[in-house]
Amino acid sequence: MAIEGKGEAKLGRRLRLGMVGGGQGAFIGAVHRIAARLDDRYELVAGALSSDPARARASAAELRIAPERAYGSFEEMAQKEAARDDGIDVVAIVTPNYVHHPAAKAFLGAGIHVICDKPLTTNLDHALDLVETVRRTGLVFGLTHNYTGFPMVREARERVQAGELGRIRVVQAEYPQDWLTTPLETTGQKQAAWRTDPAQSGGGAIGDIGSHAFNLAAFVSGLEAEALCADLSTFVDGRRVDDNCNILLRYAGGARGMLWASQVAPGNDNGLRVRVFGDQGGLAWHQEHPDFLDFFPLGKPPQRIVRAHPSTGKSAGRVTRIPPGHVEGYLEGFANLYSDCAELITARLEGRAPDPGATLVPTVEDGARGVRFITAAAESSSRGAVWTDLGLAL
Amino acid sequence: MAIEGKGEAKLGRRLRLGMVGGGQGAFIGAVHRIAARLDDRYELVAGALSSDPARARASAAELRIAPERAYGSFEEMAQKEAARDDGIDVVAIVTPNYVHHPAAKAFLGAGIHVICDKPLTTNLDHALDLVETVRRTGLVFGLTHNYTGFPMVREARERVQAGELGRIRVVQAEYPQDWLTTPLETTGQKQAAWRTDPAQSGGGAIGDIGSHAFNLAAFVSGLEAEALCADLSTFVDGRRVDDNCNILLRYAGGARGMLWASQVAPGNDNGLRVRVFGDQGGLAWHQEHPDFLDFFPLGKPPQRIVRAHPSTGKSAGRVTRIPPGHVEGYLEGFANLYSDCAELITARLEGRAPDPGATLVPTVEDGARGVRFITAAAESSSRGAVWTDLGLAL
Amino acid sequence: MAIEGKGEAKLGRRLRLGMVGGGQGAFIGAVHRIAARLDDRYELVAGALSSDPARARASAAELRIAPERAYGSFEEMAQKEAARDDGIDVVAIVTPNYVHHPAAKAFLGAGIHVICDKPLTTNLDHALDLVETVRRTGLVFGLTHNYTGFPMVREARERVQAGELGRIRVVQAEYPQDWLTTPLETTGQKQAAWRTDPAQSGGGAIGDIGSHAFNLAAFVSGLEAEALCADLSTFVDGRRVDDNCNILLRYAGGARGMLWASQVAPGNDNGLRVRVFGDQGGLAWHQEHPDFLDFFPLGKPPQRIVRAHPSTGKSAGRVTRIPPGHVEGYLEGFANLYSDCAELITARLEGRAPDPGATLVPTVEDGARGVRFITAAAESSSRGAVWTDLGLAL
Amino acid sequence: MAIEGKGEAKLGRRLRLGMVGGGQGAFIGAVHRIAARLDDRYELVAGALSSDPARARASAAELRIAPERAYGSFEEMAQKEAARDDGIDVVAIVTPNYVHHPAAKAFLGAGIHVICDKPLTTNLDHALDLVETVRRTGLVFGLTHNYTGFPMVREARERVQAGELGRIRVVQAEYPQDWLTTPLETTGQKQAAWRTDPAQSGGGAIGDIGSHAFNLAAFVSGLEAEALCADLSTFVDGRRVDDNCNILLRYAGGARGMLWASQVAPGNDNGLRVRVFGDQGGLAWHQEHPDFLDFFPLGKPPQRIVRAHPSTGKSAGRVTRIPPGHVEGYLEGFANLYSDCAELITARLEGRAPDPGATLVPTVEDGARGVRFITAAAESSSRGAVWTDLGLAL
Repeated sequence: MAIEGKGEAKLGRRLRLGMVGGGQGAFIGAVHRIAARLDDRYELVAGALSSDPARARASAAELRIAPERAYGSFEEMAQKEAARDDGIDVVAIVTPNYVHHPAAKAFLGAGIHVICDKPLTTNLDHALDLVETVRRTGLVFGLTHNYTGFPMVREARERVQAGELGRIRVVQAEYPQDWLTTPLETTGQKQAAWRTDPAQSGGGAIGDIGSHAFNLAAFVSGLEAEALCADLSTFVDGRRVDDNCNILLRYAGGARGMLWASQVAPGNDNGLRVRVFGDQGGLAWHQEHPDFLDFFPLGKPPQRIVRAHPSTGKSAGRVTRIPPGHVEGYLEGFANLYSDCAELITARLEGRAPDPGATLVPTVEDGARGVRFITAAAESSSRGAVWTDLGLAL
Repeated sequence: MAIEGKGEAKLGRRLRLGMVGGGQGAFIGAVHRIAARLDDRYELVAGALSSDPARARASAAELRIAPERAYGSFEEMAQKEAARDDGIDVVAIVTPNYVHHPAAKAFLGAGIHVICDKPLTTNLDHALDLVETVRRTGLVFGLTHNYTGFPMVREARERVQAGELGRIRVVQAEYPQDWLTTPLETTGQKQAAWRTDPAQSGGGAIGDIGSHAFNLAAFVSGLEAEALCADLSTFVDGRRVDDNCNILLRYAGGARGMLWASQVAPGNDNGLRVRVFGDQGGLAWHQEHPDFLDFFPLGKPPQRIVRAHPSTGKSAGRVTRIPPGHVEGYLEGFANLYSDCAELITARLEGRAPDPGATLVPTVEDGARGVRFITAAAESSSRGAVWTDLGLAL
Repeated sequence: MAIEGKGEAKLGRRLRLGMVGGGQGAFIGAVHRIAARLDDRYELVAGALSSDPARARASAAELRIAPERAYGSFEEMAQKEAARDDGIDVVAIVTPNYVHHPAAKAFLGAGIHVICDKPLTTNLDHALDLVETVRRTGLVFGLTHNYTGFPMVREARERVQAGELGRIRVVQAEYPQDWLTTPLETTGQKQAAWRTDPAQSGGGAIGDIGSHAFNLAAFVSGLEAEALCADLSTFVDGRRVDDNCNILLRYAGGARGMLWASQVAPGNDNGLRVRVFGDQGGLAWHQEHPDFLDFFPLGKPPQRIVRAHPSTGKSAGRVTRIPPGHVEGYLEGFANLYSDCAELITARLEGRAPDPGATLVPTVEDGARGVRFITAAAESSSRGAVWTDLGLAL
Repeated sequence: MAIEGKGEAKLGRRLRLGMVGGGQGAFIGAVHRIAARLDDRYELVAGALSSDPARARASAAELRIAPERAYGSFEEMAQKEAARDDGIDVVAIVTPNYVHHPAAKAFLGAGIHVICDKPLTTNLDHALDLVETVRRTGLVFGLTHNYTGFPMVREARERVQAGELGRIRVVQAEYPQDWLTTPLETTGQKQAAWRTDPAQSGGGAIGDIGSHAFNLAAFVSGLEAEALCADLSTFVDGRRVDDNCNILLRYAGGARGMLWASQVAPGNDNGLRVRVFGDQGGLAWHQEHPDFLDFFPLGKPPQRIVRAHPSTGKSAGRVTRIPPGHVEGYLEGFANLYSDCAELITARLEGRAPDPGATLVPTVEDGARGVRFITAAAESSSRGAVWTDLGLAL
């Protein structure tokens, strides 16, 4: 092995974690649980895992949650856990999007920290309401735009911030998939069903994956988007949401961007990619090969930066577990957000400032910006793909 | 060697070729000459190689052109060559863009076939005038959108036309470069100088490389673009033309496209890439690895199609010289257009129909569509990046 | 998300896990712990984490092991844990190689199942002794040749066994690294120190990584190696073990192989790669891009098989957690072995046959074959790189 | 375009070229003709294109060779051309291997320079005889180990010679193909027929492609091979030559090598690859992506060096025609050898020293080393794959 792994940090007690959503048949809940487990800083002790009470109980039993902490609703869970001496420190909300707002409100109201899946909410009012609530309660709120947890994404951001690319001019982001090329939602596939139901999801490709690409572009480039021109399409007959999004972006300071999100692009699984170009260099990162960052210093040969290689910086090194050439993937990137949230919460519990590296976790404000992006894109497109302001006073 | 190469075709007499432009210090002229030579169907015998008479003569001498056929102007060349018994069959016009129109007019007027570099002209009136002239004279006019000469580009087109991708929904084209990241035109670099002079070039990245990407997308997808929304930028201070182009496209029949052309994207040499997605499959081609076509049949594993492999079709096979795994590159692709033009001209001389495969050479009408794309993009952008019609009755 | 993840299996009680080695400053111990945690089937409750008692205690405290179960030696641990009602079900041995034999003997002797790092032992007698002991005790013994846990490695094996490659002719395996290009062991780096100490490691690159490549080639091809010709080198002055291994292999049935292992190949992190070719097709897998398998059906285009894609088979699907295009890496592959061992042990505890898929975990016999490979290579090389028999009656 | 192309050199008169072999149905002859034509320094004026007189005449007519210079045998051609005032300056010998020796002897004897395909001869005596003849006559003799003509292969060599890799330790070369996976020679395929006929070819994969890999490894590394251990196989029933070669190499100075050549490896077209590692860095080149060189400076990120990029050196720059990102392929690399031979011959005709860059063309001595490699491999293998000396006093 080329380097010594970081090993575990000095571990204090595990944070007590609850979960809303993520019962049998769900997808992202299991991902959150693995992410929480990976660095051993959480213990799952309570859940309102399904809106169907029987399924909620059965799911909890499978996950070794005590029956008395398997709740039938998130409202009940928030109330009862807040009342326990050994109540949960933090809740993970992994439901369909339309539940994010009421669930987050309930737990924040009960004084419980929140980790919430993206997009933040299904409309802007709810998003702004959550911003206000988080600010008022002063609680930790982490939004799982999980790609920001990848070491090489943080490396990319660090290099941009250090000026290695010079002044940023061009941002290219894309997130193509192919799983909705056919009308999968008509077959009973559960993921397809709720994600193409506007009431549950708040939008199609634009919210499910476009918001990831938008967030990633902002995270890496450090730029704030000011306006967009979005041409959203629905290519599959009968589909109730968009499945392809072609978007132009304008950033503060004059940089220009393009963003493509598609769920009807055969041959693409999760082709999230971001490229950023400045007057001194460029970089490219591809989610399907996450341990590598291509770096292009102007006038010099392209370099391939590998996670955990000596050439990487502090922010990537902080979230590296194993040597270069042994791939860390999606679950490890997701786990980095969980471990950062653990640090933010633990610091709060211990009355100290957190490790600054942990503050990279996307915030409720990032979530509101994402919702503004989604709603502005829909608005732009419905008006014929005209330029639409993204401004949001936060 | 895995397969027998096609060897040379049965060669008749070499076509007599003249050249306008391409003297000392030029770039693309040498490429045209190699392309003409590769399959041995042309002989360069005359030239007006430079607007500077001394340079024109010196350049001709270097190229073994007889002194009496080294002309001081294209007008003189057209007139005198037309008068010779052994006058040129065809002229290659490889000048800065603004000369294309008058030079082509002169040779077409003299009854001489034309091979012309792209973009066709610097404005739409000139383009339409050439369309009319070519139609009236009935002469061969080949436009060197050279990427259409690559075997795997033709393979891509053939697969789309055969329905292997189903109904096309999404087209993604891009052509990033980095050579104008700095104000190279202020250093005396000749290529940068004329290409960033609007009077000589008619536009910046949009004309120089955007037009290639637009043409390639149309060639492969078989779709006609109906409208665009273009956000052109000039990132380098003092530059007189655009150097980054972000464009949305709408195609007849409902397909949607994006096109990015940039000359300020560090790390990109000639990153021309086209991706096309239909309801049955997708494909991707990248100019920097031209012998490979990635093919994505829906629901099946991605396939890598290699030039000259048994899995390739007729149109690619026709322009293949050597076995798979021995790369044919830019010059071979360019040469394919020259050999196709030779076939078109020879067929004309012999009073027969040409090999249908040779008719893939971009036409003067394609050139006019390209000029319409360039002018519409400029118009769209100058009005704030609004949707602009691309319609052109040809 | 394109597919639903497998989610957690129905979880019974967690197995009680002990660990020998893996204290502060170690590398692979942390990997084993993450691997054990990932699918939530183990609980770490005891350890003899270091041969230094103070370090052992401190390490245990960091890992939340109760002080009374933080042992000063593996002998003590085996004895006391065997005597507890809630004693460990299984021990993970993650020490330098020379400790594997006595530690495994102690736990097997105490009736405790064993998961052991590779290579099995530092000499063949010890290896054969462990084979005998495991057979006699009837306990589960899993050897962490962890690359066999990657889904696409299992996919490769399944395709070979299904005859998709036809009769196997050629096997190419390599494992280049660069971390020992310089005399790192003289700098106090702990990993380099013990791995280049023949007494602790039993060999250099041949044992550390050559044995992985050998095992992987056998696992994928299903072939048994009969003889080798090994040219081992020590390129770094003063180094006490080999750091580059060039090996020819002959397999039963006539197939031929080559194996290269190097720790002095700049630019290589963990470049483990295996390629297998038969009379009907070939395949290639590269550890640095583990979610992809390149498959080459004879006469057809190369295909890229992606983990969790519908085109994958049963053995890969069984160890898949998340959709294609979201990378599972080294830790997930390692975790697959742990989960398989959990299944083997649980089945034993429950008196039932295990899931057949779990029986792919490398066995003590595989370990003995690996040690025979290591010792034969050393013997071959020391005699001038002559052909040496690999036969081992097991 | 990022850079100005080199354009044509100042061209003097074209060299008069003759060709032996390369008539209808041949493969490599057409490649030689394109290569000769590309930079316009040769004119094909004579040929003994086939051993079948009718085919020789017909082939000559197709290639515009005057009837009186279409010869029935190379002996006649050598004699008559030598007698003409406008006789050929140089002959290209592109026959099956067994003809190389007598043909080269004939032309050298007639005072005519020679460009000869590889391998040099079918046995060592003939090879040494040609070495002696070339030295005695003082004529130019270029051997078309064409991969040495690739710009990035020369870049690799230049970097090794400049010490950028430090002291070389490890060389890995391979050349896998798949076109002989089945008994193609039994189908009448002409290339397969003569290449698997020991009398015509002198060996199978070892001579056809193994010799290329061996030459390339030597060219790039600058090392002289001293001994080999070769395990040659014939996997296809009834085949009369080897089709898979597994070889260990020892170089002067202590470096170690491996070489794999195979014609039965499905999925490989022409997968020639060379990797060289020293104590300061490494590099890798792959023939199927010839414009790129991966460079690995120790402890720094891997770099991708692109042809014609400012980071390339003098020897690559000399043989570059077009900007980076526009691929130059197999034919251009082959043409570089032809242009270098033109320079060597022209310098001889003009009584001056040639451009030193042109002296990289493989020599008759390189050819003899290659034949020694082939014969030693056969000898080693037939004796059970034992170490065999490669020494050759030249």
